[in-house]
This record gives sequence, C-alpha cells and structure tokens, in this order.
Amino acid sequence: MHADLGRIVGSDHVERDVVVADASGLDGRAAALVRPATAEQVAEVVTWCYARGVAMVPVGGRTGYAGGCVPLRESVAVALDRLDRVRALDAGLWRMEAEAGVTTATVARRAREAGLLFPPDPGAGESSQLGGNVATNAGGPHAFKYGVTGAWVTGLEAVLAPGELVTVGGPVRKDVAGYDLRALLVGSEGTLGIVTAAHLRLVPAPELALPVLATYATVADGCAAIEAVLSSGVVPAAIEYLDRRALAASPPPHVGGETPAMAVVVEVDGTEDGARAAQAEVREALEEAGPLDLVVIDEPEVRAFWRWREGVSLGVRAARGEKLSEDVAVPVDRLGEAIEGVLEIGARHDLEACSWGHAGDGNLHATFLLDAGDEPQRARADDAAQELFALARELGGTVTGEHGIGVLKDGQLRHQWAPAAVEAHRAIKRALDPRDLFNPGKKLP
Amino acid sequence: MHADLGRIVGSDHVERDVVVADASGLDGRAAALVRPATAEQVAEVVTWCYARGVAMVPVGGRTGYAGGCVPLRESVAVALDRLDRVRALDAGLWRMEAEAGVTTATVARRAREAGLLFPPDPGAGESSQLGGNVATNAGGPHAFKYGVTGAWVTGLEAVLAPGELVTVGGPVRKDVAGYDLRALLVGSEGTLGIVTAAHLRLVPAPELALPVLATYATVADGCAAIEAVLSSGVVPAAIEYLDRRALAASPPPHVGGETPAMAVVVEVDGTEDGARAAQAEVREALEEAGPLDLVVIDEPEVRAFWRWREGVSLGVRAARGEKLSEDVAVPVDRLGEAIEGVLEIGARHDLEACSWGHAGDGNLHATFLLDAGDEPQRARADDAAQELFALARELGGTVTGEHGIGVLKDGQLRHQWAPAAVEAHRAIKRALDPRDLFNPGKKLP
Repeated sequence: MHADLGRIVGSDHVERDVVVADASGLDGRAAALVRPATAEQVAEVVTWCYARGVAMVPVGGRTGYAGGCVPLRESVAVALDRLDRVRALDAGLWRMEAEAGVTTATVARRAREAGLLFPPDPGAGESSQLGGNVATNAGGPHAFKYGVTGAWVTGLEAVLAPGELVTVGGPVRKDVAGYDLRALLVGSEGTLGIVTAAHLRLVPAPELALPVLATYATVADGCAAIEAVLSSGVVPAAIEYLDRRALAASPPPHVGGETPAMAVVVEVDGTEDGARAAQAEVREALEEAGPLDLVVIDEPEVRAFWRWREGVSLGVRAARGEKLSEDVAVPVDRLGEAIEGVLEIGARHDLEACSWGHAGDGNLHATFLLDAGDEPQRARADDAAQELFALARELGGTVTGEHGIGVLKDGQLRHQWAPAAVEAHRAIKRALDPRDLFNPGKKLP
Repeated sequence: MHADLGRIVGSDHVERDVVVADASGLDGRAAALVRPATAEQVAEVVTWCYARGVAMVPVGGRTGYAGGCVPLRESVAVALDRLDRVRALDAGLWRMEAEAGVTTATVARRAREAGLLFPPDPGAGESSQLGGNVATNAGGPHAFKYGVTGAWVTGLEAVLAPGELVTVGGPVRKDVAGYDLRALLVGSEGTLGIVTAAHLRLVPAPELALPVLATYATVADGCAAIEAVLSSGVVPAAIEYLDRRALAASPPPHVGGETPAMAVVVEVDGTEDGARAAQAEVREALEEAGPLDLVVIDEPEVRAFWRWREGVSLGVRAARGEKLSEDVAVPVDRLGEAIEGVLEIGARHDLEACSWGHAGDGNLHATFLLDAGDEPQRARADDAAQELFALARELGGTVTGEHGIGVLKDGQLRHQWAPAAVEAHRAIKRALDPRDLFNPGKKLP
C-alpha cells in the first residue's frame, strides 16, 4: 500500500499508521495518510483505493466537531493541505477559484485584499480549510444575512467513484442543466466524493460593520428583543446571543455588573451612512424590550469585539476543563424554549449547562460543562445530548445546524426524517459510492 | 384508470385524454389529467401510478420554456393548481409556507403585504406556480443580488417514489443533518418526485428600488459599463441588458432617437437614502463607459419601467410572429462574446437574431426571430440552437441558466459534463425513481 501510494504522491508524502483527530476529541487510526499535491493525484489515490476496496477519509483542517475526519476502520486518510492554491481571483468579477486545502482565513483575506467579502465565517478560520467548509456546509455568525458556505459555491471540482475527477458548475452564476450535484456534495461530509477545489462567488465588502450588544434580565426579554429587531425592517448581518452561564465564562467587553440572563448581539453592515442608520434602528428595537445595558460598538473596537465572540467556545470550555457542545437549530420563534430546555436537560442530568450561538438562525451551541476525565459525568452528558436532539426535533428543528452528523450524531437522521426520506438519503449514498469507501460510517442516517 | 383516480381526487377533478402544452409551443397528450386538492391526494395518485407502472407528469402554470410539463408517453398529468393555500405566513419571522399551486405573483403579493420580499421574479408570475418555480429553480432579473428560487426554499414537502409524502427541512434556516435532498429536488424538473409545498424564507422589503438605463454605441462599450458597475463597490439588485434588435422590437420608455447597439439596466435597492446614494454611484460607473443616453428612473415610474422589461419577450416575438429563445448562461466576462456570437450564428443560418437578459448573471435569452409557420426557418433555428449550446459551453457556460433541460435540451448535459458526472446524474435518477415514472424523458443527460 505505502509503496503504491508513494508512487502517486511521492514517498515523502505518505505517512504510515497515523492517528487523526478533530476538535470533537475523537480520534482514529489510518493505515496511511497521503498528502497529494494536485487534484489529479487525489483522483489517482481514489482510483487505487476504490479498485482495492480500501476506505478513504478526507482530512482538512481537523477543526470539525463531529468526528468527520476520524478514521473508523482500516483507511487511507487523504489530507488536502497541499492543494493550497488560489487558482484564480477575479476581483472585478466577484469570484475566486480555490483548492480544497486553502484555509478559510486565506480565502477571506484574499477576498478582502481585493475589496470583496467571502462571508462564511465558521470558527477556527486560521486552520479550517475550504474543502472541509464545503463538506460540512459551514456557517458562522454572518450566515444570517449571507447564508452558509454552499450559497457561495458556484462550482465544485471533486473526485467521484471510482476515481473520476469532475467539475460541476464553474464561474457561471446560474446553471440548471443537471441535477444540483454541487449542492448534493456540499454538506455530504466526504461520503459521496472528495472535493478538490471550489469556484466561489464573492460580493463587494461592506464599508462598515457595526455591532450592538444588549443584555436582558430574562431569556424571554432577550427573545422579544430579537423579534423586535426582525420586525424593524432592517436586515442585520448577524444576530447572536449568549445565555447567563456562557456570559459568565466569557464576559463581553464594555459590560460590567451582575451577569444578565441573556445578551443579544446584532450587527449591521453596509455603506458608512447605511450602517449607521441601521444601527440606530436596531438600537431602538433592542431598547423596546427593556435592556439592562446596551453597548454600541464602533470603530476601532469592532475587530476586538468579534475576537471576544470567537473566543466564547474556548472560554466556556475553560470554565471546567471540558465540555460537550451540540449545534442544534430550531425555528427562531422556538429559540427561547430551546435555551431554557438546554438548562432543564442539564439539571435533570446533574450537569452545568449553557448555550450561545446564532440566534437569528435559531442555531444554538448547546453545551454541558464537564470536568476533564470525569467519565460518569461524560456518560451523563451523552445521555443529555440525546434529550437535546429530541428537544430540537420537538421544536421543529434539526439535530445539526452547522457541524454535521459525522460520527457523533450517527443515526439521528432517522428520528428527524420520514422513512422514505431516509431511504432516499441511503439510495443516494449507494448510487454514488456503491462500495461504501468514501468516509464510511459517517453521516449515517 | 379514470374511475380509480376519481375515487382519490373526486370524479369532477379527472379529465380524460387531455392535451398539455407550455410556453415553448410543445404539447403532448395525457391519458388523464387529475387535480388533487391536497398533498395526501397527490401521494395517493403517485402510489396508484407507481404500483401500476403509469408515468406521471406534474403540471403547474404551464409557463415553462422547455416542455417540462408536456407528456411524452401514456401518462397521468398531475395538475397542482388546487394546492393553492398559503399555509402560514409569519411576517415577524420572515417566512411563509405555501403549496405548490400558489402562483408566483400570489407569493410575492402576500409577502409584500407583510412588508417582506420574495425575490425570485421569473416571467409570467400571474400564471406560474411555486411548484414549477421550485422544479425549475426559476430565476429572474433580481436573482443577481438575491439568488434563484432555491436560495429562498428552506424546506420542501414532496411525494417520492413509490408514493411517500415526506418533508425535508422546514421553517428552520440551517440544517445539515442529511444530504441536501431539498437542493436536489430544486431544479429536478419533476423527475425525482412531485413537490407539494415549500417553506420559504423572506426578507424585509427594500424601501426603494431605482433603475438606471444607459445605452451604448457598441456591445463592447455596454459590457465595459457592466464591468465598471461591478467594480464600483455597489451591489446592484439587477443588471439587465438588451441588444439592438431586442431594443428595436421593444423600445424602452424615455429613450428616443436611433436604436443603440446595447442598453444596460442597473437597479439598486435599499433604504431611501441608501438606494439614492447607490444610484448615484451606478450612474457614475455607467457614465465611465461613454453612454449615448442615460435615463435615471425614479418613482412613480419604476413599476411601469419593469412592466416594459417584462414585455420584452412578447415584443420580440411579435416582431415576426414567432421566435426560438434559449436561456444559455456564461461567465460574465464572456458576455460580449456570447452576445456577438448569437448574431453570428443567426447570420450563418440566415436568421434574424437578438438577445437580452440578466447580464450580471451572464444569462442570455438568445433568440432567433421566425415567421409563423415557416418550417424550413424553424429547422434552421433548431440547428442554430445547437451551435448556441456549443458556444455557451466553449465560453465556460451552460446550455440553460433558467428554463431547464425539459425536452428541448434533451441530451445536452453530456456535452457539458464529464462522463462520470453524467453517470452520477443518471445514478441519482435510478436511485430515486427506479421505475422511471416521474416525468419520464425529461431532464435527460
């Protein structure tokens, strides 16, 4: 195996017997990890594996939270990090073509340098890679206004079974010639093929983005504030929230005193004048719901403010050393019930719980705080997570809004979808990966 | 057959031996046309047909341009027009759930009455239905800023083989629990199942939308103007164009004198102040390219202006009585070549040609003008269309940006995609419709 794979990618780029882990804490062992340099080499690796019945696990920045890149059985891990070229950037035409191993931060930076915006902003952008963003259909705070990764992908280059390099879509912005294979690969977690490059749509960067943070004495008040913002006529770029325990673990800048029950962050963007006018309207809406405190953030504080927001997950983890976080999503009018429900589930399992997340999209990072190494606590958290998934479904939502099924939510889909839809999911997997060699064991319904 | 189907939908809602046509001029005969009143009745009809190997053709507003609703063999036509309920409209939450038979105009009007916008605006909105919009992933001028129909669908209710009513997604705005069946059904032209309802995302309506029209002496100047607009930093809501012959057939309001080579229409929207500021920037960009004439349209003229734009297709048809129009799309930097190419192809086949369309999306309505009933001319136009498809592919584009493959572009996909991608398309069809009964003969690769 190693010699054959070395002939494809170069022997320096094959490692034997490698442990691959992601941010979920899961790990697994691959018989080999190969690092192809080109899409053609990826196709050759897939051809070699597919012909021999060898499973493949695509590996990006290893920042996932569902075990998507963790090998479950004798596998070849296919790391995409050497496919790191931005193949084309057409600033005047609002588009970029980038390989799967380009980091999310590099895509964003290259766009920004051209006066453009690549809006998806999942966490860990310095490490996470475009291929993984596509495979999970990654979101982030600004998905509220701009949509998730898939909304910005106009074409994909990918290797399909049994080792064919294909391109669907491209720099063209509209295309209904075939079934939307592009959209099918987006979010498929590497189980239908391996994405090697993406054609991205970009948009002129807003001149200014301005957040407002308001705190509330109750979750009900915070949710009323969110609905007031939605009724204001303004289209915010992001609507985020944190509950009391999350705020305590990661206090926002410029907010003192007793920790409130809920903080709501609303960012608007646009031209300088437009953003300021919208910020005033948002402020008025947030004030309607009777905030404890309201902080208008302006330049030069905006970047520091978002760095705080990006650090919330780490802050919550640090509170006790470990955590179990799940990314359920619910219709936005059920957000309050979901936030309270997380706390109730935690209490039933004797676990400290909290949540924060993308309020406008009804997307919670529902979290149980754990002491490192406490196995009974971890087992209770696993049980609590099952109740959380049930709660999300009861509220008309989904077990995963951002991270995907991976290994950790294995089997959840069949509680969420009707049997015929689950069967359609399975039929698509069989149709495109008849030997079950693309990331086997992942995204199982 | 008719008695059994009558027991499901009521005998008043079964017609025998019906001719079904769409706007392409194609027609075909169905053994029966049924008009179910509910999604459950659609499921019963599909169950009956699927068990007996009877083909089904979903029929919406019959406004398609590719023969999508035209029966090709012994079929049951399933008309969705009685599924005409807006099941829910949550203004404060920016969402609507509507059945497949609700007209596009009704969806837009109900949204507007709630202060919201449903952006997809394909032609013939008074007749076209939401189910057909979903099945074709319909676009329109404002897809440039807002995206096509699929971008606004968060969930679908559909009947899959062999007659199962399922819902994928819903009012939740983010969901990566399963493969994106929603996106796969969008644009599948009824070949994978029958859509019965959609959960739609809406957005607060802009306060003001302001078009600017500029005319140019050459296509090159017009295309330079479009690129200047794209480089201005403004995000227009729509960027449209018409070439000389299209302008002659359907002269724009407020423009006199000799017909120019090209007109470019750029609309901006937003708050009152924001739209006016953006209009000024767009005007400046359009002036850079040296227009012959430039008309700033303002209230109360905006609606009348768009009514003119919507009438272009009819105006062009009326020029000689008939036309053949194809909706190819190319990367926007190849638009000029495509516009000139249409004229050259026309000239080679001794046909008067023209084009207009969604310039910002590189989407042309490339048209050959025909005399009604002139069969040799029609045959030359069919040959010319094949060259047009080849041109779109050569320019890195697609044979269809809006209308779909239907019957008319049957077999084009295999020239556009690699064989493995075409095989994936076929494998998906076999997986979800193993008996080939959903709209057979349509969207064939």
